[in-house]
Amino acid sequence: MKQNAFYAQSGGVTSVINASACGVIETARRHGDRIGKVFAGRNGIIGALTEDLIDTSTEPASTIAALRHTPGGAFGSARYKLKSIDESPAEYERMIEVFRAHDIGYFFYNGGGDSMDTAHKVSSIGRSLGFPVTCIGIPKTVDNDLPVTDNCPGFGSVAKYVAISTMEAALDVQSMAKTSTKVFILEVMGRHAGWIAAASGLAGSGPSQAPHLILFPEIPFDRSAFLSRVKDCVTRNEYCVVVVSEGARLADGTFLADAGAHDAFGHAQLGGVASVIAALVRSELGYKYHYAIADYLQRSARHIAARVDVEQAYAVGQKAVEFALEGENAIMPTIVREADEPYRWSIGKVALGRVANREKKLPRSFISADGFSITARCRRYLAPLIGGEDYPPYRDGLPCYATPRNEPVSARLTGDFMLK
Amino acid sequence: MKQNAFYAQSGGVTSVINASACGVIETARRHGDRIGKVFAGRNGIIGALTEDLIDTSTEPASTIAALRHTPGGAFGSARYKLKSIDESPAEYERMIEVFRAHDIGYFFYNGGGDSMDTAHKVSSIGRSLGFPVTCIGIPKTVDNDLPVTDNCPGFGSVAKYVAISTMEAALDVQSMAKTSTKVFILEVMGRHAGWIAAASGLAGSGPSQAPHLILFPEIPFDRSAFLSRVKDCVTRNEYCVVVVSEGARLADGTFLADAGAHDAFGHAQLGGVASVIAALVRSELGYKYHYAIADYLQRSARHIAARVDVEQAYAVGQKAVEFALEGENAIMPTIVREADEPYRWSIGKVALGRVANREKKLPRSFISADGFSITARCRRYLAPLIGGEDYPPYRDGLPCYATPRNEPVSARLTGDFMLK
Repeated sequence: MKQNAFYAQSGGVTSVINASACGVIETARRHGDRIGKVFAGRNGIIGALTEDLIDTSTEPASTIAALRHTPGGAFGSARYKLKSIDESPAEYERMIEVFRAHDIGYFFYNGGGDSMDTAHKVSSIGRSLGFPVTCIGIPKTVDNDLPVTDNCPGFGSVAKYVAISTMEAALDVQSMAKTSTKVFILEVMGRHAGWIAAASGLAGSGPSQAPHLILFPEIPFDRSAFLSRVKDCVTRNEYCVVVVSEGARLADGTFLADAGAHDAFGHAQLGGVASVIAALVRSELGYKYHYAIADYLQRSARHIAARVDVEQAYAVGQKAVEFALEGENAIMPTIVREADEPYRWSIGKVALGRVANREKKLPRSFISADGFSITARCRRYLAPLIGGEDYPPYRDGLPCYATPRNEPVSARLTGDFMLK
Repeated sequence: MKQNAFYAQSGGVTSVINASACGVIETARRHGDRIGKVFAGRNGIIGALTEDLIDTSTEPASTIAALRHTPGGAFGSARYKLKSIDESPAEYERMIEVFRAHDIGYFFYNGGGDSMDTAHKVSSIGRSLGFPVTCIGIPKTVDNDLPVTDNCPGFGSVAKYVAISTMEAALDVQSMAKTSTKVFILEVMGRHAGWIAAASGLAGSGPSQAPHLILFPEIPFDRSAFLSRVKDCVTRNEYCVVVVSEGARLADGTFLADAGAHDAFGHAQLGGVASVIAALVRSELGYKYHYAIADYLQRSARHIAARVDVEQAYAVGQKAVEFALEGENAIMPTIVREADEPYRWSIGKVALGRVANREKKLPRSFISADGFSITARCRRYLAPLIGGEDYPPYRDGLPCYATPRNEPVSARLTGDFMLK
């Protein structure tokens, strides 16, 4: 039996989520005997609810191939979490109705923990509504917080970007420290877990090398310990590089970014945690500072993606389709680490029910005893994930990123579906 | 007659200033019959004043070669402006004393306008003190504000970084706009001139492509025009990418960054101009926003340097030495544009007196009539400067940047020199 497939991107995009899309579509095209067209959801799952589907079969092979080196979400992603089936059965019923109307027998959902939960639910509701759909989750998150899988596609490239940026900015600050900036602060993503902040630690090791201090969400911010470490570092090295996670927080759980806005340090301000730390350094130590906020640049920097990450992102997309064709259902391909050095990995699988809505935090054993740097164990885990480069092609000095046509599929249902 | 040479880096460093150092040292080594050792100033000109010289002759050829792909200032740079000879004759006399003690007959000063002025003065004071020194300036500034030369080494790589980052972040924002961030703001350097902000314009063209709005220091900020353009853009495209120069200002000359701090928009804050613009967007239009502050990352991002920029940085270092050996004095090598497309350039020269303390602003003809984007003429000027890639070598996922030993030269003078 030949059926169509539906692919949707979910949540914050990454520099390699389109590599997963590429893996799904190219693999489906190789199995034209069993999979008809691959439809993509315009703006992710919203496209399924509103019957706004993109027909990827009209894209030439070269465009699909170029997705492998294109950042962002080519078909649009969405922050849209479905409620439980009990609370909002209409959404699930609608999705199955759209799938039925377009003869969609395969659902590939590319996202984080919430998305795995949704894929899991769609798999069971389809069966109970008499239209069974093979549902495969495809892992994606820069936050690296999915359980079971060794790491998440998207994370390695952010990790590489952050490690390289820390290294480069540190060389800059070091060379100017005699007469200019003493303290440089880099704010990175990771509201709940310090994986990205930890990756900056790959830039150097030992007390004289940047980053000199990392502020993790997992370690409550200790104002006096922090200030004394900054002072020591500037005294010894003439400069200090601090990497701070956007999720850094006080012992009571308040985000430092909010603490600053609420004047906890006597400085009213709006902005991220970097400016809070900067204000503290200035008022308590009087050092000249600069800060950078990488924000979306870090998760879209396809120009410096990790080759390993690109390969894994493609592989989980490819295997998702292959697993579906092998009769698997309600699972997610995982990355299995087989050796640290030389790094070897393979693709495994896990039941969606085991990954949905569970967050993997940075283990305490990955953070040094003093709370300001990473351990050798953490380094061993992280180092292979930033391995290799995978440069996009360039023309006239700029990357040639894919521009898919994203042609709509004609609607077959009548009536609009109102999103919540 | 064989004499030693002195090389110093000055002001804010760039991702290619060490490529100029590489050009100077490699070329001097090829002329060992006329140039003895190349000494570098530790922390730039401060090293000359305090007799803190680095002996580059102890570095292996491989380390010097690696400077070509290493960001930051390998020997240390300084923000230290010498006063006029009349105001501070002791500084100039001291420098000549140090040069005499170490038999330094060549002074290569790698910096911006102030440094060209200093090199010019040293050339005349040396003569009047009976120790003539051949003084050659080597252009360097990410701000691209030196006159006469077509462009400044350092600028092309920042321009490339900013154009690529804008393109990548725009793809990210575009894909999430339906349910998440509508307005993304990228703050870039350029306190006095909008060259770097202008470079973001290379990321796209036409009203639907990012960057949708650029805020230049040259155009007084028009609050209502800005807000109305952002609103139109979000209405039409569902998102809006704004690139703002740190030097963006009000009609009265106040920097927007300071205006924000002083509550001009009703929001007390500390931080850069990006947060001021973000607060304005939020309070007046209510859109969800994100902002990135590239800060030092943009000028140290050697991993994505423009090949043209690296080649030009090396060439001005090489030609500085060759000009000196040809008997030139008190000049600066310049980059001469011979054709836009295909781009051709050569190295010329200009008297230091003609470049010292003159700033080249972004011409009004490079900014669109409405003040929010760049013109075709600007694009024609900028496009070749970001041409080509020049990737550093990598090991274990990280760039292999040079780590020179920076061995000190034994002091020959007695007594300390007190810096102002």
